[in-house]
This record gives sequence, C-alpha cells and structure tokens, in this order.
Amino acid sequence: MSETVIKFGILGCADIARKVGRAISLAPNATIVAVGSCSAQKAAKFAADHGFPPGTQSTALRTPSSTTRSLHAKWAVLAAQKKKHLILQKPVAVDVAEFDKIVEACVASCVQFMDGTMTARMKEFISDGRAFGKLRAMHTCFTFAADPVFLENDIRVKPDLDALGALGDADWYCIWAILWGNDYELPRTMTTSRGPLFNKAGVILSCGASLDWEDGRVATFHCSFLSHLTMDITAVGMKGTLHVHDFIIPFQESEASFSVASESGFDGKPAEHLVSTSLPQEAMMVKEFSSLVGAIKAKGSHPEMRWPIISRKTQLVIDAVKLSIERRFEPVEILG
Amino acid sequence: MSETVIKFGILGCADIARKVGRAISLAPNATIVAVGSCSAQKAAKFAADHGFPPGTQSTALRTPSSTTRSLHAKWAVLAAQKKKHLILQKPVAVDVAEFDKIVEACVASCVQFMDGTMTARMKEFISDGRAFGKLRAMHTCFTFAADPVFLENDIRVKPDLDALGALGDADWYCIWAILWGNDYELPRTMTTSRGPLFNKAGVILSCGASLDWEDGRVATFHCSFLSHLTMDITAVGMKGTLHVHDFIIPFQESEASFSVASESGFDGKPAEHLVSTSLPQEAMMVKEFSSLVGAIKAKGSHPEMRWPIISRKTQLVIDAVKLSIERRFEPVEILG
Repeated sequence: MSETVIKFGILGCADIARKVGRAISLAPNATIVAVGSCSAQKAAKFAADHGFPPGTQSTALRTPSSTTRSLHAKWAVLAAQKKKHLILQKPVAVDVAEFDKIVEACVASCVQFMDGTMTARMKEFISDGRAFGKLRAMHTCFTFAADPVFLENDIRVKPDLDALGALGDADWYCIWAILWGNDYELPRTMTTSRGPLFNKAGVILSCGASLDWEDGRVATFHCSFLSHLTMDITAVGMKGTLHVHDFIIPFQESEASFSVASESGFDGKPAEHLVSTSLPQEAMMVKEFSSLVGAIKAKGSHPEMRWPIISRKTQLVIDAVKLSIERRFEPVEILG
Repeated sequence: MSETVIKFGILGCADIARKVGRAISLAPNATIVAVGSCSAQKAAKFAADHGFPPGTQSTALRTPSSTTRSLHAKWAVLAAQKKKHLILQKPVAVDVAEFDKIVEACVASCVQFMDGTMTARMKEFISDGRAFGKLRAMHTCFTFAADPVFLENDIRVKPDLDALGALGDADWYCIWAILWGNDYELPRTMTTSRGPLFNKAGVILSCGASLDWEDGRVATFHCSFLSHLTMDITAVGMKGTLHVHDFIIPFQESEASFSVASESGFDGKPAEHLVSTSLPQEAMMVKEFSSLVGAIKAKGSHPEMRWPIISRKTQLVIDAVKLSIERRFEPVEILG
C-alpha cells in the first residue's frame, strides 16, 4: 500500500513559504493544494511564480495585516480547531503563554504540530560515548549581514510585526541546536551578554548569551543580522570535538558536512565527514511531518508530542533571553 | 655582517622549557648556554635528554621551590636587574601589580620583555576592510583533556604554585587571541559565565566569559582542562568570517591553516588557506626576540615596548576574570 499523500495549504507568501513550498513539492508524500495571502491575486501570483501544482487554490485571508509572527497564534489556533495539522515557522509565538495556546488547540483537535526548524544530522557522533564522551560545552553562532532593505522593511525588524527580531529568527536556530546537543535538557540558567544591538524601534538586531546546566555543562550562542554569514556549531565532549560550519542551511543542498576529532593530540587534524541525503533537509522535514500525519489519518495514531515539546523548550529559552535583556543582563532561571 | 647570535639561559625544566629549548636550537640567531633548575643534576639531565649544545651550563637555583608562576616575579626581576632580556611563559604574573614590577625592572635595565605566547598568522585577512569588513564578534575556545596525573600533580592545578589554573594557562591564550583580533583594544567590560568548575583546592579548571566594546563588538572565550582538545578562533566581520581550529599549536608544525569566507551566501563554502612558515611558530618567536635583543646589543636600540604592553593588557583581562568569578559573575569594568 502506498503512503498517504498529505495535502498542504500555505499561509503567507514570504520567502520561507517559497522554500517550504519547494520542499513540499520534493517530498514524496506531500503536495500543495492551497495558498493564502492578504489577497487572492497575490496568492495566485505566488503559486504561479513558484510552479505550484495547477489547481492550487488561492485564498484571501481575512486579517488586518499579513501572516507575521504576532498573528501566528490566531491563525494557528484557528487552523488546529479546523483539524488542520501544523508546521509553524519559527519563532512559533511571541512567548510561551501564546505558544501553549497553540499546542493546546492542537492537542484538543488531535493534530500534529511541528516547528519549521530543520533537523541536524551529526547526532550520531556526539551520542557516541566512546568517541565523544560526555558533552561539556556547546558554542553556536548564526549571523548574517542583512541588507539595508531588510533592515528597513523586513517583518523581522518591525516591533509591531515580528517583535522578537534576531531573537526569534537567528537565535531560535541556535537555541534549538544547543537543546538538540543537550538531549533537550533545559539549562539551569540563561544569562545574556552585554552589548546587544537594537534598531531605533528597539528590536534586537544582535545578541548573545551563556547557558549552564547543573552538572557543569555550558553553552553560548551569538546571533546577529549585522555580521557576515556564519553558521557554527562547536560541541566539545570529554573525548571529542564536533565542528559544523553550515548548520542552518548546508553549503551543498544534499550533503551535510562536519568535522570530528576524537582523542586526538596537537597533531590531530579533525576528520571531515560528509553525509549525503536523498532530499534537501527541509524536504526531509516535510516528509517526516507527512508520515506522522499519514499515520494519524490512516491508523488513528496519536500526534507525536516530541515536536511540540522541543519547540516549547526553545520558546522558553527565547522568553528567558528577552527577560534577561530587559533585566540588564541578569541571569534568568529556566523552569520547565 | 651576520646577525648577533643571542645566548639563552632557561630557568626551569618543565615541558615548555623543552619546547622553547628546541625553538632556540632551531632559530638561526639564538643558542642555549645555560639551564637552571632546583638541582644542577636535574638541569644537566634535562640538557642532555633534549640534546642541548655541549657545554651548556647546569645551575642549581637557590629557591625554596620550583620556578612556578608564583615565583615568576622574583626570578624575572632578579634577571632583569642583571641585565638579562626576558621571555616569560604565560601567565606572566599572578596579577597586574606583580606584572608591573617585572616590566618596571625591565625598563630600568633597558632589557627586552616578551611573553611566550605564539603569534598568529592570519591577521592579514581580518585587517582587510574590503574582504572582512569591521570586526563584530570573536569567539575563542581552548580546551584540553588533562589526564588524571596532571589533574593531581601539575603546577597548574596547585593553589600555592600556579594559583590561576586554567585561567592562567588556556585562558591566557584565548584572551591574547581576542586582544590580537581587536588590535589590542581593551574591552569595556568582562563578565564571566556561570558554571565554572574548580578542583577541591579551589583552582579553576574550566571557565568562560563574554567581553564587550563601546562600539558593539563582542567576544567570548571558553577554556577547560576537562574537555577534548579544541583550539578555535572564530572571527566574524561585517563582510567575512575567519575560522581557525589550531590556533594554539598548528596541526602541522610548519603550516598554519585557516578558512575564510567573504561576502558569501548560503552556498559559499569557506575557502581553506594554508600559510607555510620556514620555522615552527615558537622558533619564529625566539627569532623575533633575538633580533630585538641583537639590535639592543649591537646598535643600542631601545627595547620594543609593544610586547610588554600587549602582555599587560592580557594580564588585566585575566585579573578581571578572577575578580568577576569572585564577585559571582558580576561584570567587571576594564580600565587600561
């Protein structure tokens, strides 16, 4: 029996929608059936421009503004109530209270929830006690040099649209990666670093923080819209080190590269590893999501709660970063 | 006219002395003439074991203990007063007050001072405004997994010997590298991260910190005796990114490797660069030192003050790290 093909509707026509749209086209168990935007014309043009399947419905969303973060909750809850399974782009919500409303709606309707963060594929090495040992420290960095148009107009720099700025965008990925490396164990405290940068409207353009766990593990992240593209994960274990320099989007679409060193000395150059994937990582995500939804539809499976749990933890740390900056870089305890 | 060959005496027989001894042998303008240790026999054995030139004098130092950090000041001042030029291993002193006594003695005797930190060789890229742009952030990490013998017995873990622990060892390099990248401009504040680790005697085994400058530049470092060997510099400019994974000791002795990306997008894999050197980096340092000393001897030049000034700044940040940890991770203002 062939797998159920899951039908997707896309809300919003931002660049990420183009990207996820392509991923849906590539995933073998997914297809696009509808696009919604502020006007049906805009949605139709978007579908045509990006080669979405003929017959894709174009819908005008009855909303005062676009489908930005601040409206995520409204649309997400509405969609869940209509029994639609959800992939939500990061940042999922403006804070964890809003996040919980979305997940509650998903649970009530028995629909799958997933955030759009791409999955990393070098877990095997850092899970290998013999080669990597116990994780001691993780450092992540995601920066990109936004152009002047972005810095003036993008929803990510508007306080009334995506109020979180770099925190909800670049930081989301970094925090997500740190939690991933720490088996999704929340840190004990999170302290933002001095020197964050804001635009005139007070939206964060650059910030960093350090996190620590009970057992002495530590992590840092640094994120910015104002520096050259850098996408680093460094994970240091007692016996090994992992370096990734393209953890957000691999330099080569179907290939993830990272380097590892294990029990090596000063003459031990890290070994380069390449992991080939049959699909780009965002298509892998759509495929995974569609499989889960297919199982719910075909076999009455329960939604996989692993995804909303991970997203919620990421959101909790994001909330802590915001609070720590508001409190002038005071540490914030993170309570799961 | 051939260059003056500078005669070196080595105080102490630690592993670093072996290494610097070899560097002196390799440098074309330097030679070893004496080794001092707690006993003349120990010094003689050390000289013989490491193939120092025949005729190298072996001397017993009249001191209650070995030539550890806490005794650096005593020996350094004494040597300077005897008109000896000085290369001092890091950490140069226990604090900046002690450091200043050493440099005062050097200035009074008109002798050259240099700390033993190896120089990095990828400055060209990050100084290139067109390719790298303005520096925005630096992240450094130097960790190594000390073995149980080191963790029990090394002078770097004894409060009465090298009181600074990882702070005076691994941190010295990281701070030195951060200052190097920032053209030796001191940061405005330095804040240590939560989660440092100490041994039972209270000596730091692992710690990290974040630093910030007036204009929004930031930096972090992470150092540990308890994690796998990691030697990273990441420098992020507005237009470029530099990655170095062997900044302490190059994986290949006569070759420094680093990767750079400039104005690249998500498909822009950083380019690997190799810089060949005719001598290992520690021999380059000895050569540079010997040239300076040779100029003082032959032409009556003044000692080059650049080196003590850089060392003093490093020591100032080390002092701030110590203070910030004592003050439970409060930020410490750094006043040059």
